[in-house]
Parts: sequence; C-alpha cells; structure tokens
Amino acid sequence: MTDVMKAIVQTTEGDPSALELQEVPKPELQPGEVLVKIAAAGVNRADLTQAQGNYPPPKGGSEIIGLECAGEIADAGDTDRSVGEKVGALLVGGGYAEYVAVPEGQLLPIPEGFSFAETAAVIETACTVWSNIVMEVGLKEGETILIHGGGGGIGLMAIQIAKAIGAKVAVTAGSAEKLEVCKKYGADILINYKEQDFAEELKNQCNVILDIIGGPYLKKNMFALAEGGRMVTIGLQGGNKAEINMGIMMMKGISLHGTTLRRRPVDVKAEIVRQTVENVWPMLEEGRVKHHIHEVLPLADASKALGFLEASSHTGTLVLEP
Amino acid sequence: MTDVMKAIVQTTEGDPSALELQEVPKPELQPGEVLVKIAAAGVNRADLTQAQGNYPPPKGGSEIIGLECAGEIADAGDTDRSVGEKVGALLVGGGYAEYVAVPEGQLLPIPEGFSFAETAAVIETACTVWSNIVMEVGLKEGETILIHGGGGGIGLMAIQIAKAIGAKVAVTAGSAEKLEVCKKYGADILINYKEQDFAEELKNQCNVILDIIGGPYLKKNMFALAEGGRMVTIGLQGGNKAEINMGIMMMKGISLHGTTLRRRPVDVKAEIVRQTVENVWPMLEEGRVKHHIHEVLPLADASKALGFLEASSHTGTLVLEP
Repeated sequence: MTDVMKAIVQTTEGDPSALELQEVPKPELQPGEVLVKIAAAGVNRADLTQAQGNYPPPKGGSEIIGLECAGEIADAGDTDRSVGEKVGALLVGGGYAEYVAVPEGQLLPIPEGFSFAETAAVIETACTVWSNIVMEVGLKEGETILIHGGGGGIGLMAIQIAKAIGAKVAVTAGSAEKLEVCKKYGADILINYKEQDFAEELKNQCNVILDIIGGPYLKKNMFALAEGGRMVTIGLQGGNKAEINMGIMMMKGISLHGTTLRRRPVDVKAEIVRQTVENVWPMLEEGRVKHHIHEVLPLADASKALGFLEASSHTGTLVLEP
Repeated sequence: MTDVMKAIVQTTEGDPSALELQEVPKPELQPGEVLVKIAAAGVNRADLTQAQGNYPPPKGGSEIIGLECAGEIADAGDTDRSVGEKVGALLVGGGYAEYVAVPEGQLLPIPEGFSFAETAAVIETACTVWSNIVMEVGLKEGETILIHGGGGGIGLMAIQIAKAIGAKVAVTAGSAEKLEVCKKYGADILINYKEQDFAEELKNQCNVILDIIGGPYLKKNMFALAEGGRMVTIGLQGGNKAEINMGIMMMKGISLHGTTLRRRPVDVKAEIVRQTVENVWPMLEEGRVKHHIHEVLPLADASKALGFLEASSHTGTLVLEP
C-alpha cells in the first residue's frame, strides 16, 4: 500500500460542479479507529450543502465529502477488528474516497443479503431516521407522523420505519410520480405541496413531524401538530428564519427539536449506530424496510450525483463506487 | 349542607381588582370526582392572567379562579375515598371558593407535618416543576439549569428540586433581595437581569432552561443553551412572538418545549400528580424542599393577593383561606 489514495477534491469553493478525482494523502488512524477500503459511498443532501459551502465539517473532521460507506477493513488499528472484515460505516466526512478512517463505534454489519452499494445506501438514512423519529421524539404505534419530502432518501426510509413501528404516515412531495413511490413504500396520506395546503389537510392531527424545510413551514407545521405533538427539523431547504408564536407551543403542549447527525459527539453516534442496528437491521433483513437506489455512478461522477440532488429529480439514494 | 357556597366572582371582566366574595351554586360531582371543603387555596400567576382575561379556563372547567387547594373530603362521590379525609388537590379552576369538585387522580396526600396552608402553597408549583424539568426535559444530576424568575413561587420550588436532583442552578431575578432569597434556597449562580446579560454570563452552558418570559428572551435563551440543551416555556410574561433561527436549533441540537399544566388531559394530570407525590413529597417531608409562604390572606382579599403578583413585590407563594 502506498500512502496516497484517490479522493474527490473540490477545486472551486462553493461550486458543486467543481468536484475532481485527485490523489491525496491516505487518512492516518487515531486511537480507536479502523481504516476502511471503500467499495461504495452513499450520497446525501448534506453533501450538496457542504459542496455549496453552507455545511462545513466539524472541527477535526475530514474535508472530503461523504457521510456513509461500505467496504472492507484494511487496517484494524488498535481495535480487535479483523483486516478483511466487511463493514458499513457512518462517517463525519471522507466517504468520497478510496479509504476512510472510522471510529469503531460507527461501524455497522452488512445486513444479510445486502451488497456494498445497498449497504452504503441505507446507513445515513437509517441512522438519521431512527435517531430522530424514535430516539429524539419518541414516535409510537398508532400515532400519525408527517414526513416532508417523502420521495427522497430520508423520506422513503422514514415512511418504511414509521410503518414498521405501526404509525400512520402522511407525506408531502412535489409531484404525482414521487407521491406514487411514497405510496408504494407504505405512505397512507399523500399531499402534493404544489397543489394542496398540508396544514389545512392535517390540522391538529400530527403527533410527529419530520421536517426538512425549516423557516417557511414552521407556522404551518405548528398548525398541523396535534396536542402534545413533537417536530424534529433535520434540514433547512427553505431557510432558517421564521416568526414563532410561543403561545401556540404552550397551548398545544408541543416541542420543536433540531438535530444534525454529523455534529453529535462520538459516544452519541455510537449509541445511535447501536440502536439502529438493533432495530432497523432486522427490518432490512426481513424486507420490511427496503433500500431504494436511484443510480450507482463511478466516484469520478460525484458532481453529476450532486446535480441530481440539486434538481430534486431523483427518488431514493445515489451511490458512488471508487 | 345547603346547595350554595361562597366563592370569588369577577364583577368586571378583565379587571383583577374586581373580585368579590359572593354566593354561587356548589359544584356538582361528575363520575370519579370528590367534593373537597377548602381550608386553604394557593395563588398562582396564572390566576392573575385569567383575571386579566388572557387565560380562559379549558372547556368544561370551573369559571372560578384557583388551581390548587387543601382541605377535607366533604362528599366522596362514587370513589372509595372517605368523607373527612384530609387532602391536597391540583385543580383546573375553582380554588377560590368554599368547595370544589376534583377528579380523584388529582388528589394528593398532605405531606407529613404540613398544615393546609403549607400544602396549598406547594401543589401547583411542585407539579409544575416536576412535570416540566424532569418529565418534559429530563434534567439530570450534574447538569446546569437556568431558572428565570427565581424569586417567585415556581422559581423557589424549581431551585430546590433541581438542587435535590444534583443539578447546578443559575437564576435570574430583578432585585438583590430576591437573589438573596434564591441563594438561601440553594441557587449557585445569581444574575440580576436589570444589570447583567444572562446570555453572555451563561453562553452555551445551560443544559436546561425553565422559561417564564417567552418571546423577548428566546434568542438569548438559545444562546445560553448548551449543545443538546432543552428549554421549556411555561409562561409568557414578556409576550409570545419572536424571531427564531432554526439553524441554531439544528447546529446546537436543542429542543424547545411549551406546556401548560392546566390544559393537560385528566389522565396525564393524574400521572403528573403520581410522580410528583412519589418524588417531591419525600423531599418536602425530609425538609430538602421547603415551602415559602409570602402571606396568608382571607379569601375575600383575592384582589389584594393578585395585586402582589401584578407588582411582582412578593417572594414565594400567597395563600387564601375561606
């Protein structure tokens, strides 16, 4: 092994079309980390936000884009893992590359019957959905959840996990085609946000909302929440500012949560990974939750992959292969 | 027993000084309720808000003001309770009177060694504090909590319960005298909001905030919250509107909660009462949490009692005796 590898480097700051495959130094292992030789890397909306210059990596994190991968352990470092072991990994960055260093607590087993690409396509979405709709806001059987952006990678995962929990699922999406996919994955209530007002349709009915829009939807989301409802915001596709009426929060007894998976401390990430493997991996292996790969592209086509996200023209997840 | 009683009636809507003792019908018992002959009724800030016309009772609730009392059971209705049993009661209204009907789940025992007045002075504050700082936002040993309005009835109860849990306690209040009382009850960090900027003093340090101000403090409170911090708003003394930056919610991983004890469903209230008696009653009986009565007044002086709250000139709780 040489001490260099190929990875995606951004040649113009803030320009998602300026991603090139270049030679860079291989990552060095810190205590408790293993080196994974990447076979497949998942593409997430946060990657696009980072490439646009709006989501810098946390202190000490890799500058290379990419939040999830699957592959083989190439160096077990000081851990008890074995070289050659096939794993998935939740990353703070560094997925768009040939190798990545990963804290052991962020390794996941390959679900039975899953390929590397299929594994890389579900890690970030499964951990995001489980940590938010269950660990953060406690979605329960019989409750109603509203999932914004039902047709994306997070959305389709959230629909399926919520259905597996026994919740009633409402989704918003911007086209009849996307809503049809949501329905196929189990959504009960389909709302085209270009034609319908979700707040009127779901007034006081939502026990949980999984929000990716932020500011422009806040008032409507609070209108749609039921008494005792909980909303968790994991994206700000519409912007971050809003006016809030705290009297409505009190009178309805609601709570508003914000999270980013990437910024959680390493021990919290390990606990999220542990609970996700315990609860979601059986759903994947039994087929109750399905992966949904939109397309697999070569790693060199990273800009093209982010272009799909920019145009919102995909359903499900994109995967890159070095 | 006749079918009338004396109670406080508001003769001019929205005017807290227009409260008169008049004869009104005694309450009729619904299934599962007991009739309590009131010996002492606690006075809360919500009473003032209701008298000002800004906090109407929930549907089906008594129009008479008053959220807590202590006394003896005068009619056990269809329950297994005994006439003459001494009890405290958490109410949705009706406390400023000689008799009140109470769902059995909202009865509490008299803490050992406590008088009726002392019991009436702690029920609403104990249930409010426990349900919010523990049940709603999970304050834990070793965490830091910021309590706004430390010198009020809720504030002094919150300081003591938080200390009993093992938390570090910061408070805000508007005078050196009030801060001195907060210190006596255990507060570690004292902030005079007229002279200091609490957000600068506590930047990123608060795991939990108990908020009674609302809109004007939202931005500062979010600044003071630590990563993973939780705020619960139970009052809006400064107003209900604010601009919110949801990006800060996400980056800090914080949650904002709003509650009112009075509007919770009857089964939730019963659970709050159960957990408060289980956890806070021993603290009261062992002297780790002390009541703090500002003054005991005759029931006819209800307007005078609310006047103390309006002027914010008291520390601790006011009690009325029929």
